[in-house]
Amino acid sequence: MTSHLLLFGLLVAGCSVAFASDPSPLQDFCVADEIDENSTVFVNGLVCKEARFVQADDFFYSGLQLMGNTSNAVGSAVTPVTVAELPGLNTLGISMARIDFAPQGINPPHTHPRATEILTVMEGRILVGFVTSNPENRLITKLLQKGDVFVFPEGLIHFQKNVGNGYAVAIAALSSQNPGVITIANVVFGSNPDIAADILAKAFQVDVNVVYQIQSKF
Amino acid sequence: MTSHLLLFGLLVAGCSVAFASDPSPLQDFCVADEIDENSTVFVNGLVCKEARFVQADDFFYSGLQLMGNTSNAVGSAVTPVTVAELPGLNTLGISMARIDFAPQGINPPHTHPRATEILTVMEGRILVGFVTSNPENRLITKLLQKGDVFVFPEGLIHFQKNVGNGYAVAIAALSSQNPGVITIANVVFGSNPDIAADILAKAFQVDVNVVYQIQSKF
Amino acid sequence: MTSHLLLFGLLVAGCSVAFASDPSPLQDFCVADEIDENSTVFVNGLVCKEARFVQADDFFYSGLQLMGNTSNAVGSAVTPVTVAELPGLNTLGISMARIDFAPQGINPPHTHPRATEILTVMEGRILVGFVTSNPENRLITKLLQKGDVFVFPEGLIHFQKNVGNGYAVAIAALSSQNPGVITIANVVFGSNPDIAADILAKAFQVDVNVVYQIQSKF
Amino acid sequence: MTSHLLLFGLLVAGCSVAFASDPSPLQDFCVADEIDENSTVFVNGLVCKEARFVQADDFFYSGLQLMGNTSNAVGSAVTPVTVAELPGLNTLGISMARIDFAPQGINPPHTHPRATEILTVMEGRILVGFVTSNPENRLITKLLQKGDVFVFPEGLIHFQKNVGNGYAVAIAALSSQNPGVITIANVVFGSNPDIAADILAKAFQVDVNVVYQIQSKF
Amino acid sequence: MTSHLLLFGLLVAGCSVAFASDPSPLQDFCVADEIDENSTVFVNGLVCKEARFVQADDFFYSGLQLMGNTSNAVGSAVTPVTVAELPGLNTLGISMARIDFAPQGINPPHTHPRATEILTVMEGRILVGFVTSNPENRLITKLLQKGDVFVFPEGLIHFQKNVGNGYAVAIAALSSQNPGVITIANVVFGSNPDIAADILAKAFQVDVNVVYQIQSKF
Amino acid sequence: MTSHLLLFGLLVAGCSVAFASDPSPLQDFCVADEIDENSTVFVNGLVCKEARFVQADDFFYSGLQLMGNTSNAVGSAVTPVTVAELPGLNTLGISMARIDFAPQGINPPHTHPRATEILTVMEGRILVGFVTSNPENRLITKLLQKGDVFVFPEGLIHFQKNVGNGYAVAIAALSSQNPGVITIANVVFGSNPDIAADILAKAFQVDVNVVYQIQSKF
Repeated sequence: MTSHLLLFGLLVAGCSVAFASDPSPLQDFCVADEIDENSTVFVNGLVCKEARFVQADDFFYSGLQLMGNTSNAVGSAVTPVTVAELPGLNTLGISMARIDFAPQGINPPHTHPRATEILTVMEGRILVGFVTSNPENRLITKLLQKGDVFVFPEGLIHFQKNVGNGYAVAIAALSSQNPGVITIANVVFGSNPDIAADILAKAFQVDVNVVYQIQSKF
Repeated sequence: MTSHLLLFGLLVAGCSVAFASDPSPLQDFCVADEIDENSTVFVNGLVCKEARFVQADDFFYSGLQLMGNTSNAVGSAVTPVTVAELPGLNTLGISMARIDFAPQGINPPHTHPRATEILTVMEGRILVGFVTSNPENRLITKLLQKGDVFVFPEGLIHFQKNVGNGYAVAIAALSSQNPGVITIANVVFGSNPDIAADILAKAFQVDVNVVYQIQSKF
Repeated sequence: MTSHLLLFGLLVAGCSVAFASDPSPLQDFCVADEIDENSTVFVNGLVCKEARFVQADDFFYSGLQLMGNTSNAVGSAVTPVTVAELPGLNTLGISMARIDFAPQGINPPHTHPRATEILTVMEGRILVGFVTSNPENRLITKLLQKGDVFVFPEGLIHFQKNVGNGYAVAIAALSSQNPGVITIANVVFGSNPDIAADILAKAFQVDVNVVYQIQSKF
Repeated sequence: MTSHLLLFGLLVAGCSVAFASDPSPLQDFCVADEIDENSTVFVNGLVCKEARFVQADDFFYSGLQLMGNTSNAVGSAVTPVTVAELPGLNTLGISMARIDFAPQGINPPHTHPRATEILTVMEGRILVGFVTSNPENRLITKLLQKGDVFVFPEGLIHFQKNVGNGYAVAIAALSSQNPGVITIANVVFGSNPDIAADILAKAFQVDVNVVYQIQSKF
Repeated sequence: MTSHLLLFGLLVAGCSVAFASDPSPLQDFCVADEIDENSTVFVNGLVCKEARFVQADDFFYSGLQLMGNTSNAVGSAVTPVTVAELPGLNTLGISMARIDFAPQGINPPHTHPRATEILTVMEGRILVGFVTSNPENRLITKLLQKGDVFVFPEGLIHFQKNVGNGYAVAIAALSSQNPGVITIANVVFGSNPDIAADILAKAFQVDVNVVYQIQSKF
Repeated sequence: MTSHLLLFGLLVAGCSVAFASDPSPLQDFCVADEIDENSTVFVNGLVCKEARFVQADDFFYSGLQLMGNTSNAVGSAVTPVTVAELPGLNTLGISMARIDFAPQGINPPHTHPRATEILTVMEGRILVGFVTSNPENRLITKLLQKGDVFVFPEGLIHFQKNVGNGYAVAIAALSSQNPGVITIANVVFGSNPDIAADILAKAFQVDVNVVYQIQSKF
């Protein structure tokens, strides 16, 4: 009997995130359920909350009226509303985010490995751009005003910059409950542990000391 | 050790239906498994029955030769064969149903939020119809005889009516293991709790008393 | 030779909307292309604009800063940004909308047959709700304030009501390039042509004259 | 100008079936459209019939009340209702079939490469079976009576046999608009041209003359 | 408390393989996790290994440099690298295999019910072929040399034969983490238990004794 | 009549790549068809070659036995076999590539926006690695020998380096007919036109002159 208990302990301790596919839910909804609120164990996507315990708050999130803290090196802040913040999104293939920009702030080049992004400007003027894949690597940019909408296709590297003198705000939606973010500079020059400097030096055609210098910032 | 047990109790009590996606099974089959036959706990779609316990009856259902009980307000009865009745359907993206109609009976306007329906008439004459989405809202209808086949595209509101003097029977198939049914009248005027009457009055452009009257029937 | 030309004329005249599936684009993007700007022919989703003709404006839409005209029977207006308005959305599985509400205005009960909706309130207080499918038909409602977010799962009937004294505004995103809208009252009581009144009378358990009365409004 | 015409001739002559994916339609429906009724050219799935030309008959098929001709070597006949027979099925991921069996007739071992099959018996007693993939190759069989339902998972080899003394009839549904049929004996021993006899002799562990003998029947 | 333990015992004992869909992972990866290394229990695809326990070896497999043992009736050996051998493949929709051929060895007619195969020849000359579905049953063959690549579309019956005098080697990739293999001869004539000989005799148009003879080999 | 011709000219000239989704083909195969071999017009994925014109060579590619030219800045060369090189791959969700490395050569950090990659080493010793998304940005690396296999999950940034003294060769397979490649350095510092240097300076936390220096190399 002890072995069964141990087995179960392994199950709980060893598994934090379970698989589920974005398209085609199999029931009205499947609210992602925590197994144990007192522990840090969270089986996201694996278990649906029992129907009788589901309530309106499972489909609800509060806070997008609040400006994010843009006092950082890039001058921007993203407030995500994914399945991690809103468990009712589980299996439904969509999420949202608020993006704040200090004057001249940027949302640096990044990709969402599992989602297309559509964005609309609430306040300010934002320069946006994305780059197509090899071999063209074409930059497509547009200056957006309040009420403008722009699309960043799935997996492509894109960025935004507040080109106005005041704060700027945008609301974005993404085509996955968990789109993921790969900030290029952080992933390439700030991974844990670092990518070997000689590889990055050859990749970016710079001296290895330039690589060390950039790595020291991330 | 007590806490582990408690934790497990929560897992069992708190989760009744798990997510799985209709397309692209990952193994020959994945028979939906009950965890505990003596309880009402059912983890549908979450766990596959272990292969050595799978048997022919997991892919089998008996009963579509039986006429459903049409002694009700609408004069029809649906006998579903979804994953809830036939666990071998799990992950396979299809289900079936028998529909019986008393003379003049109707299968009232409804949608299947996760499936297209294809239907063939076994006995009788059935008037069928569906309505396209906004802005056209075009009604497409057809009078079906024995042996005729008709398609109701996914998510569109549709209905059937027995226009003959005898009983009518149809066999339908749906493109999901759990297509779902939203009977419009019941969902709009008979939800639990009721939708506020002033909202329905404005939506249907009727006096609020007409709303109360209809709500009292559901 | 004439027959070939005629054949081609049929192709162009006879086909307005082509199929494409929301998930898994096969290239960086596929801007929906018009074949002939001078005609009304539009082969949406069928043809990708040639890469060298693609420009930033293909991924761009302007106008969500503008309030929609809510001077109508329900007191609301939806400004959609789907693939029809923003051709760069083609194959990317997402779209957006602005919803305006006059004081006490409602967005009446409706479904999106091909999308989940996530919505955030920009201004005002909005009561939102959706109803689960059969047999529970449970109403799940929430009063939203500015900055709140709510999810309406794919295919379920839902509604919104401005419960404040001023105008209200929301931004919504949907998990399809062409989510579709089925406004229940319009589809059931205002289809073209009408659904036979006796069917609706039996479905809604009302006298056929009540059906005629409602149908006269749509 | 001649070259353009020629070009178009190539387009029409060179392409008969276009790609479209079963899941997630992008519009209410997409009726498969013929380009030229007088030719044999058919661009299935490529083009949607223009909405204003769509009519109820596009979603309709007549004929499943008729018994198929079972006077053949195996004593069975399948009447399919796929997108080829019912163009409204295009993009909707489902199809239907009637299967007739003479006394002792069989529907020989076959697979559907793109669909699961669910089947219900209308008349007679039918022995059904499918075999799991390597390495188990387990045969799962069941004797079905009128009203019984059975599932054959996607891609697995299965068969049916009328074990009664009279005719037997079944209605089947499949989870694709174009499920495909691979009749094992015909494909392995009756392909055009033949598979080399030495390959089949080694595969089936028989003398090459046995292969020739079987090949002569197909 | 005993009942909870018992319940859990059932969970562990009763479920070996869980469902997950090939397309659209919901996180960076989801390494398939064993619950209990000391038992034979394996919940493939159900649980993702907790992120902090994931390591490089979860994405790694060693052994494709080794020649498989081709001393068998068909003279070939397949070394698969699917999710069973490489748990990091879970949810990622791809797998690999090495195929070795003795001189004149064949990989007998088979299908992959859940995958397309692409293959490249490392050494030797290999005759490959596949047969299209009904009604054409067209055989498409090609003689491949070192460095040649060939595609076998999903679900179609195909085979390979080493037509050289030395050993031959190919590397194949398949579009599923668990493509499955249905070796036609084994499944049809060597299932457990056997398919009734009279069914196979009628299907292959041979005397029942020929069936018995073939069945005796598998 | 002229207008029809003109219209058709627009169709041919204006559309080069059409949409199709990787999962779930709708027929045995759909060989991507060129409309006009004499022009550069190619309607990839839009039109299937007519069945009677399909031949074995449509599923065939020759050339992976050849070493790519690694005399370039990074010392590596990729020989892709995607739908562009092998039209029979259309709709089938898989492709292949050969990767050659000069001594110390690297395949610089890149992503495939639409595919997971599985790779096996043919010759040499290759250090491989990928980095997880935010916020962990964990580097997962492994030194591979001949016969080793490694997986790079969809959308994640990864790289390879030949750490041996001789040439190294790998065979890779990818889970899309057109996986796409985004070489980070080229896309970020070598796009056409350049991303504004001040944006990159802030993103990578370097002086704008360092950006200019790197941009000058791409």
